[in-house]
Amino acid sequence: MHETYLQQALQLARDNVDSGEGGPYGAVIVKDNRVLAASGNKVTSNIDPTAHAEIMAIRVACKRLNDFRLTGCVLYSSCEPCPMCLGAIYWARLDAVYYACNRFDAAAANFDDSFIYDEINRPPQHRRIAMNHVNLPDAQKPFALWNQKIDKIPY
Amino acid sequence: MHETYLQQALQLARDNVDSGEGGPYGAVIVKDNRVLAASGNKVTSNIDPTAHAEIMAIRVACKRLNDFRLTGCVLYSSCEPCPMCLGAIYWARLDAVYYACNRFDAAAANFDDSFIYDEINRPPQHRRIAMNHVNLPDAQKPFALWNQKIDKIPY
Repeated sequence: MHETYLQQALQLARDNVDSGEGGPYGAVIVKDNRVLAASGNKVTSNIDPTAHAEIMAIRVACKRLNDFRLTGCVLYSSCEPCPMCLGAIYWARLDAVYYACNRFDAAAANFDDSFIYDEINRPPQHRRIAMNHVNLPDAQKPFALWNQKIDKIPY
Repeated sequence: MHETYLQQALQLARDNVDSGEGGPYGAVIVKDNRVLAASGNKVTSNIDPTAHAEIMAIRVACKRLNDFRLTGCVLYSSCEPCPMCLGAIYWARLDAVYYACNRFDAAAANFDDSFIYDEINRPPQHRRIAMNHVNLPDAQKPFALWNQKIDKIPY
């Protein structure tokens, strides 16, 4: 069963290269043994660096369920999710992930997945893209407002 | 200068709580001392778990520049980017990031940023959301097609 859905993800990845719509990646989201969403990578065709196959499939699945949580769903990806997609998987609260290639296969094809995984463990200000903390007196105000808000929608 | 843009990001975060559009986060992207894109968090209003402020701002900036690369741009965020947004920042090839709050401030307001950073360093199959590698004979085919493709658009 897992292999069938992974083969679908790999087929999407191959089709994506053939059609020129984006990178060699595909993802499928399954709920109750039915495909809820499927997408290839659309970074170049959508002019959106966040349009990885996993992110696109998550967006479609959420729209279909009218829910920003995908509890009960499983993601099948042609390749190990990059840190961006890993984060999206947690925020979407998926049940599990299955993948065929890994970050080193992606690196061999000149994709930055493995490099970004390495960067995460460096101190923010020493990363290749420096991430700098600035102390401001009112920085905690948004969180304070959020904590006080009675009718908020947690996610 | 950095403080001015960070204050704008914090204002977006406060406005976002007031309007009920999403979580207490805001982000601004600046190029050549001009604001190119600005957004609050839209997870609940867009029904999209990937609609963090940074991701939304990156998408808007890319559309405005008609480019999936944001080289020459700086991101200002009310809070340290989560792993999803960190990944997006690398894929977008931004120059630098400045932020006001950090992952521990977010954790204190019940957001999972710090938890997801911890999960990344666990073996994939032992994460809270298990990520399982499955060996398939044709797994490398999409990358092989990509490497052979003459007219591909690298990103």
